Amino acid sequence: MAAILQRTVRLRAALRPLCPHSTLTCTARLSPADVHSPFLACGSGQFVASTRKLHVEPKSSPDGAPERLPFSKVTEEDLAYFRKILAGRTITDPDLLESSNVDWLKTVKGSSEVLLRPQTTEEVSQILSYCNSRNLAVNPQGGNTGLVGGSVPVYDEIILSTSLMNNILTFDNISGILTCQAGCVLENLSLYLEERDYIMPLDLGAKGSCQIGGNVATNAGGLRLLRYGSLHGTVLGLEVVLADGRVLDCLATLRKDNTGYDLKQLFIGSEGTLGVITAVSILCPRKPKSTNVVFLGCETFEELLKTFQLCRGMLGEILSAFEFLDSECMRLLNTHLKLPNPITDCPFYIVIETSGSDQDHDSQKLDNFLEKAMASTLVTDGTVATEQSKIKDLWSMRERVTEALTHDGFTYKYDISLPVERIYQLVTDMRQHLGDRAKSVVGYGHVGDGNLHLNITSPAKDPALLAAIEPFVYEWTASCQGSISAEHGLGLKKRNYIYYSKPSQAVALMGNIKAMLDPKGILNPYKTLPDDLK
Amino acid sequence: MAAILQRTVRLRAALRPLCPHSTLTCTARLSPADVHSPFLACGSGQFVASTRKLHVEPKSSPDGAPERLPFSKVTEEDLAYFRKILAGRTITDPDLLESSNVDWLKTVKGSSEVLLRPQTTEEVSQILSYCNSRNLAVNPQGGNTGLVGGSVPVYDEIILSTSLMNNILTFDNISGILTCQAGCVLENLSLYLEERDYIMPLDLGAKGSCQIGGNVATNAGGLRLLRYGSLHGTVLGLEVVLADGRVLDCLATLRKDNTGYDLKQLFIGSEGTLGVITAVSILCPRKPKSTNVVFLGCETFEELLKTFQLCRGMLGEILSAFEFLDSECMRLLNTHLKLPNPITDCPFYIVIETSGSDQDHDSQKLDNFLEKAMASTLVTDGTVATEQSKIKDLWSMRERVTEALTHDGFTYKYDISLPVERIYQLVTDMRQHLGDRAKSVVGYGHVGDGNLHLNITSPAKDPALLAAIEPFVYEWTASCQGSISAEHGLGLKKRNYIYYSKPSQAVALMGNIKAMLDPKGILNPYKTLPDDLK
Repeated sequence: MAAILQRTVRLRAALRPLCPHSTLTCTARLSPADVHSPFLACGSGQFVASTRKLHVEPKSSPDGAPERLPFSKVTEEDLAYFRKILAGRTITDPDLLESSNVDWLKTVKGSSEVLLRPQTTEEVSQILSYCNSRNLAVNPQGGNTGLVGGSVPVYDEIILSTSLMNNILTFDNISGILTCQAGCVLENLSLYLEERDYIMPLDLGAKGSCQIGGNVATNAGGLRLLRYGSLHGTVLGLEVVLADGRVLDCLATLRKDNTGYDLKQLFIGSEGTLGVITAVSILCPRKPKSTNVVFLGCETFEELLKTFQLCRGMLGEILSAFEFLDSECMRLLNTHLKLPNPITDCPFYIVIETSGSDQDHDSQKLDNFLEKAMASTLVTDGTVATEQSKIKDLWSMRERVTEALTHDGFTYKYDISLPVERIYQLVTDMRQHLGDRAKSVVGYGHVGDGNLHLNITSPAKDPALLAAIEPFVYEWTASCQGSISAEHGLGLKKRNYIYYSKPSQAVALMGNIKAMLDPKGILNPYKTLPDDLK
Repeated sequence: MAAILQRTVRLRAALRPLCPHSTLTCTARLSPADVHSPFLACGSGQFVASTRKLHVEPKSSPDGAPERLPFSKVTEEDLAYFRKILAGRTITDPDLLESSNVDWLKTVKGSSEVLLRPQTTEEVSQILSYCNSRNLAVNPQGGNTGLVGGSVPVYDEIILSTSLMNNILTFDNISGILTCQAGCVLENLSLYLEERDYIMPLDLGAKGSCQIGGNVATNAGGLRLLRYGSLHGTVLGLEVVLADGRVLDCLATLRKDNTGYDLKQLFIGSEGTLGVITAVSILCPRKPKSTNVVFLGCETFEELLKTFQLCRGMLGEILSAFEFLDSECMRLLNTHLKLPNPITDCPFYIVIETSGSDQDHDSQKLDNFLEKAMASTLVTDGTVATEQSKIKDLWSMRERVTEALTHDGFTYKYDISLPVERIYQLVTDMRQHLGDRAKSVVGYGHVGDGNLHLNITSPAKDPALLAAIEPFVYEWTASCQGSISAEHGLGLKKRNYIYYSKPSQAVALMGNIKAMLDPKGILNPYKTLPDDLK
């Protein structure tokens, strides 16, 4: 026992100073100057003109998007109506609209000329009722942190922002059930709950900007899914405004309710195509009394997987995250963000988090695990953090990979679910397949969930490279019965690849559901469902 | 610390011998002689004749059921078709059909003359395709352990039993993901997994008979929901045969998959009215290395709630169940099942279970909690079990209440979700409201989930008593924004009470979904949705 503690102390002493950069929060809105070029890439291939003129129709379809559907165009009468119900919150100034028209990755840009900022469900209902009757397309928008072009307009859809719907409605301190409006920013909810000894059941790198309504609409996964499960389990109720303005009140605050079909489930992950989520009730876990984060290095992915198995067995109920990044990610963190490697260089790195109710017990479990992992040479180096600032620093190594990638060049992003033992093989195969055509091919993600983030960069947008990546990546994934979108959704960019992960029978049924709930198709058109359904 | 251990040892020493009766498993099928009378009560009010003759139409509608819908009647040609595709598995012998026509509570009885026992998805598909084209109604049936008349035919619906679809298809020892046919009995799956160091994420009293397909179709809750969450989170994939025989393959084995709408969610809790579940994939937790069960007594429900709060704070991540029963339940256990009270008599009893990965840590957490609970006089007496047989004995005190009630008389059962601080008030109010009109009014259930099982017995069926209970119980529940069915579903018995828990907008949408997936309404008719939708 003494030996174990000694070794662990040594491991802890190995902690090196980390760059104190804050984690990626996406709070900074993009200014037009940030955008790569005055012509914005939309999807892949061609370009579409970025226009500031009112009532100018895009000259061609944004690359990868289907033709504009025959929705009405916004008239002065429409604007007058919106200004009547949303005085001061009907935005038409192109400068103000700019950041809502372009996505966080700057790869999709719409040309909407109207941004509506309702504060209440009633206002959302009035907007949709009106738009439906006028056949005006609507792009619901939360924090606009999506990665698949689902959160911005494709053409001139009216942007319906939930940003001003940011009130916490109730919090029950006994049950831990929170109800709030859809526009509450995830980090604000987290701070609110932490003061009350609870936490949100989900956490993402984009927490500083993303909104709970958008999280639910995209069925966000993130860093705590391993421990607290998916939103299909933790969301207890939703209030949704349907395409025709009807308000669907499923805002229950009960852990169990088997009265009829669980309608709210339909809207979780529907990316704003079936209704606009206006309020959410969610079950929040107690705030852990003790948190530890370990950063470890492994020589092979096989050893990393064995470490995962060992970890699950020995840390059991206190394991709250098991994430990984490869040495290529580390190189990008070093190069672009000047984040130094906290341990010696290794091919693979692991971030393990424990969350528990007893610091002594948790430390003992962690020490036992680390002792065993080191003794069996599964891991070659590591460092442990128990203080909040050090924990944050270690987490940055995982959370800021996305940010580092944006500095490396144009990034092709893939978010793949696979049987856990296969997840890194795709990175290796892709690297071999692309040879020197790619600048970087990196893999990181949520080992505990079988979720790989595969990212490929090139100095600039490169259609030839894209053609080498796709459909290779999708075919590879389909051959393992994987999912071509584990947590990002399909949005505009991936909608037509749905058949790689879903049989046509299922996709056809999705089309029926869309037609039932939004017969005119005004809600977030061109997204999620493949073009051949329309 | 020494004092704490001493007190806990004393508490442990207080363990008294328990009756070794096994827990309720519902494995014994009812013989006709078990049934209270040759005339079986169906719902409430009148009686319907139990007939053994072929092709005799029920003389009147079963009480509480709507008129028989104009489905076709099974002809000799139909039987010939079924015998062709299901040789030896098309049952028409009335003796063999008897137990499938009556529910476990013996309160609903149908008059089906055909029981089909497919073994494969393809066979289910052929059956439904045929029945849909012939307009023949179908009652999908799993273990037939439901409590709301959802699992038996109301009239002459063809019974489609999943009992022979009992193969385990795959189990991934790394991810803990099990896929199996719908007819696997829950307890068999549990035994299979325990040998592989895993457990099922759900556990119910009826585990010896209930089937995983039925569990999913009714969104079963049970004893582990507090720890592992609902089936909406743990079920990863479903294979479902739709009403027209199309096979919907959503049998993914991935923790994360955001490609399009999550269709499988629609079928979880739809009680066989939208499709027949033929296979399930489910995420299974690791088998805990240590389990403890504590049985405690409290003087008031307020103290019980305070004990719950204390327990959640101090046991944290190892808490896996927090259940309660009142002194009336204890009286029935003593009287009807001869189960002695393991502690001194109290108004309220608590069953707490912990499941963890380290026996020493768990015991220490439990000891600390018990020390504090006793010191603050929240609990007045208690006993702890760590051995498997003792754990089982203590669990019987909670699990066998349902069985004890069946011996007490005709039972009116209510399964209510409420804000946790309100759950026992309903029992108190009901007792006062009914006065001496009821034989027993008892409350027990899942405190951790805010789920009360309110049961009222009388010497025999008593329409006047029923009129005093309903709609009182539903109005009371609705006034607290509770659910009139937390986990049992609506089935035949509660379908028309849906409006107490769901707004008409939501119910109408459920009707649209039913019409979309089962336009002829052949699947489990008269169940789940209210009559006014039909």
